[in-house]
Amino acid sequence: MSTPLRIGVAGLGTIGGGTVKLLVENADLLAARCGRPVTLTAVAEPNRNRTPGVSMDGIEWHDDAMALIDGDVDVVVELIGGSGGIALKLCQAALEAGKHVVTANKALIAHHGKELAEAAEKAGTVLNYEAAVGGGIPIIKAMREGMVGNGFSRVYGILNGTCNYILTTMRETGREFAEVLREAQDLGYAEADPSFDVDGVDTAHKLAILTSVAFGCEVDFEAVHVEGIRHVSADDIQFAEELGYRIKLLGVASRTDGGVEQRVHPCMVPKSAPIAAVEGVFNAVVAHGDFVDTTMHVGRGAGERPTASAVVGDIADIARGLNVPTFGVKASELSRLPTRRMAEHAGAYYVRLTVVDKPGVFADIAGALRDHQVSMESVIQRGRAPGEPVSVVMTLHNTVEADMTAALGKIESAPAVVEAPRMIRIEGF
Amino acid sequence: MSTPLRIGVAGLGTIGGGTVKLLVENADLLAARCGRPVTLTAVAEPNRNRTPGVSMDGIEWHDDAMALIDGDVDVVVELIGGSGGIALKLCQAALEAGKHVVTANKALIAHHGKELAEAAEKAGTVLNYEAAVGGGIPIIKAMREGMVGNGFSRVYGILNGTCNYILTTMRETGREFAEVLREAQDLGYAEADPSFDVDGVDTAHKLAILTSVAFGCEVDFEAVHVEGIRHVSADDIQFAEELGYRIKLLGVASRTDGGVEQRVHPCMVPKSAPIAAVEGVFNAVVAHGDFVDTTMHVGRGAGERPTASAVVGDIADIARGLNVPTFGVKASELSRLPTRRMAEHAGAYYVRLTVVDKPGVFADIAGALRDHQVSMESVIQRGRAPGEPVSVVMTLHNTVEADMTAALGKIESAPAVVEAPRMIRIEGF
Repeated sequence: MSTPLRIGVAGLGTIGGGTVKLLVENADLLAARCGRPVTLTAVAEPNRNRTPGVSMDGIEWHDDAMALIDGDVDVVVELIGGSGGIALKLCQAALEAGKHVVTANKALIAHHGKELAEAAEKAGTVLNYEAAVGGGIPIIKAMREGMVGNGFSRVYGILNGTCNYILTTMRETGREFAEVLREAQDLGYAEADPSFDVDGVDTAHKLAILTSVAFGCEVDFEAVHVEGIRHVSADDIQFAEELGYRIKLLGVASRTDGGVEQRVHPCMVPKSAPIAAVEGVFNAVVAHGDFVDTTMHVGRGAGERPTASAVVGDIADIARGLNVPTFGVKASELSRLPTRRMAEHAGAYYVRLTVVDKPGVFADIAGALRDHQVSMESVIQRGRAPGEPVSVVMTLHNTVEADMTAALGKIESAPAVVEAPRMIRIEGF
Repeated sequence: MSTPLRIGVAGLGTIGGGTVKLLVENADLLAARCGRPVTLTAVAEPNRNRTPGVSMDGIEWHDDAMALIDGDVDVVVELIGGSGGIALKLCQAALEAGKHVVTANKALIAHHGKELAEAAEKAGTVLNYEAAVGGGIPIIKAMREGMVGNGFSRVYGILNGTCNYILTTMRETGREFAEVLREAQDLGYAEADPSFDVDGVDTAHKLAILTSVAFGCEVDFEAVHVEGIRHVSADDIQFAEELGYRIKLLGVASRTDGGVEQRVHPCMVPKSAPIAAVEGVFNAVVAHGDFVDTTMHVGRGAGERPTASAVVGDIADIARGLNVPTFGVKASELSRLPTRRMAEHAGAYYVRLTVVDKPGVFADIAGALRDHQVSMESVIQRGRAPGEPVSVVMTLHNTVEADMTAALGKIESAPAVVEAPRMIRIEGF
């Protein structure tokens, strides 16, 4: 039990730097807990200026990540990023060489998870990726292990800290998306090109992974319905507050009789729901199992140190000899479940219209809703300077998405409606 | 890998019944995930009327739990309860016989955890107890494994669903403790003898276990400062609401320069804190690690099915060959850390006094506070029918407990103060 586990880290960006720090700073604690030393022996990073702030004496430094394959490492930690390219090549080669792989790369697992899982099984090694979903939150472990006795019916969460920070700040300050995004970029909470985050793609990668672990099905990123938060306005956030909701970008996966539904979009959640209190850069994952009922796991969704915590949790499992199948069951036993399309989704809706106040405008709106079996729950109208456009906000319940979409199409074509209707789904948890 | 893991369950009460149900109902799912069958082979329960609602065909039924030791079982699941007696004897004998042990028994682990851990290590078997803390929440796994890379500085939580249900219902209905307790007893949320729950002992057992796992020290139940919720009044809950707080019974463990502080008592927590939104029978554990920062884990803290989920998580770890030391490090390596006594605790306080409104009453109160270096943050006085006692509520910050206690003693002796002062600590998370 005292043979050291030798670690090679590829990529010394934010997560790589944090991982190296943790392995060095908490080495004694980790050895005591794992019953053996967990030793950083090599790193691979072409940019020699990326020094992690701890002594690298005695640690091999390669420019080329592939050099880790032939080196004296038992675990290759892939922290380079990207859904293919060198990250994929490195993981494939490492598994083929009989090494364990730990990665924080959600895009890679969302796109190539199954083939990598098969390679790991063939080699009898481990492929872990806790840091890919929910940053420091050990949610993959909770679902694959702690709640392993449960059939899961639903898993959802706030999976992107950038979006949650922007939505929280919009609510707290009353400012618009574009302005808050710029500020988040200045603070380093958003990338220069923010589209992966704010358009929901990052959330969709993570959701696709959670879906596979929860339902034992193959990762199906293409089946995720994806909308981001660019169209959420300060007005929507203000109306949500009045109606008793908070707006969160959620990834939601449900197992229904009609198939698996995976969707990423802004949601209104009741202010009293525990997930509504998860603010700023924090993430949260709610899992609903047939025995455990509802659980929620909250933590920092990104950042050097929290993500390093998750990476090292994966490494420690290897040090302790644990080998759980990548997606909870053997890759060959993962099912292919049918997809329930978004048009079939049923739920409640918030709709905000901008109309000029002419005779007949409400009759047009009410007629379009009636024609598509959409029933109204409440209406708010605000602002009434004569001749000026006014906001009309409606909440609608128990509607099939296809009907809602059709009704909105008809409403948009009404002469008094001067902007495209804005729609946000309401979740009833 | 296809050798079945044979399970013997001792005790078919609430948790035992749920565990048997889970093992039977989700047997296929569990086998697929563990890579081998997990098979219930025997139960032990003297009361033959306790049938778990699934077919027991082919399963041995013993009256005496000790019969499991000589039977064909690999894992003995102790769900009898009690801090000693047959539960202790069974676990000791099982470990000595080289069997793995899973238990949901917090009192047993809080009182005999170290000796049982040593016995498990000696035998090379596993002692798991996830269900002992936080019901269905896989928090022991999260701390021992998922967040294994972290040094922990603080762990706290809502650890007793009965108390949280009572406090939530008191707030929602404005009723007093005694009335809500009776209702909880009628609904089965509280025991006929509720003292273990409402006097904080159950929370203290769970906290002592969390402390050991977090800080790598021996379980020290005797060092826990314990207060329950009997003295929390409807008035206190109403004043908390006005001041922006919710009242929760928390167990809090902190590692400080002066030693380990373990305390169980009602706390006022800010309404905006995520833990304030954890209501009813739900539990929550917040852990603060040096890399992961703050995490929160929420779920049902009791009940047949959630607790069974945790028990089966422990069993599955054994099926997969995982053996993590009972308290995160080897029992022989657990430290003995000094205790920081409650008198040394420093924090903010809420105090409610009942006074008759006479000249000089405020001078007496203010003088007592001044004499003990306690500084006031805010005061509310309510009700002023002439000659009637009135409530005076104060909040006080950054006070050492010994000073607060001394000041309250002096205040209580003031002639205008007609009831013992009520004090609730305010937590600043």
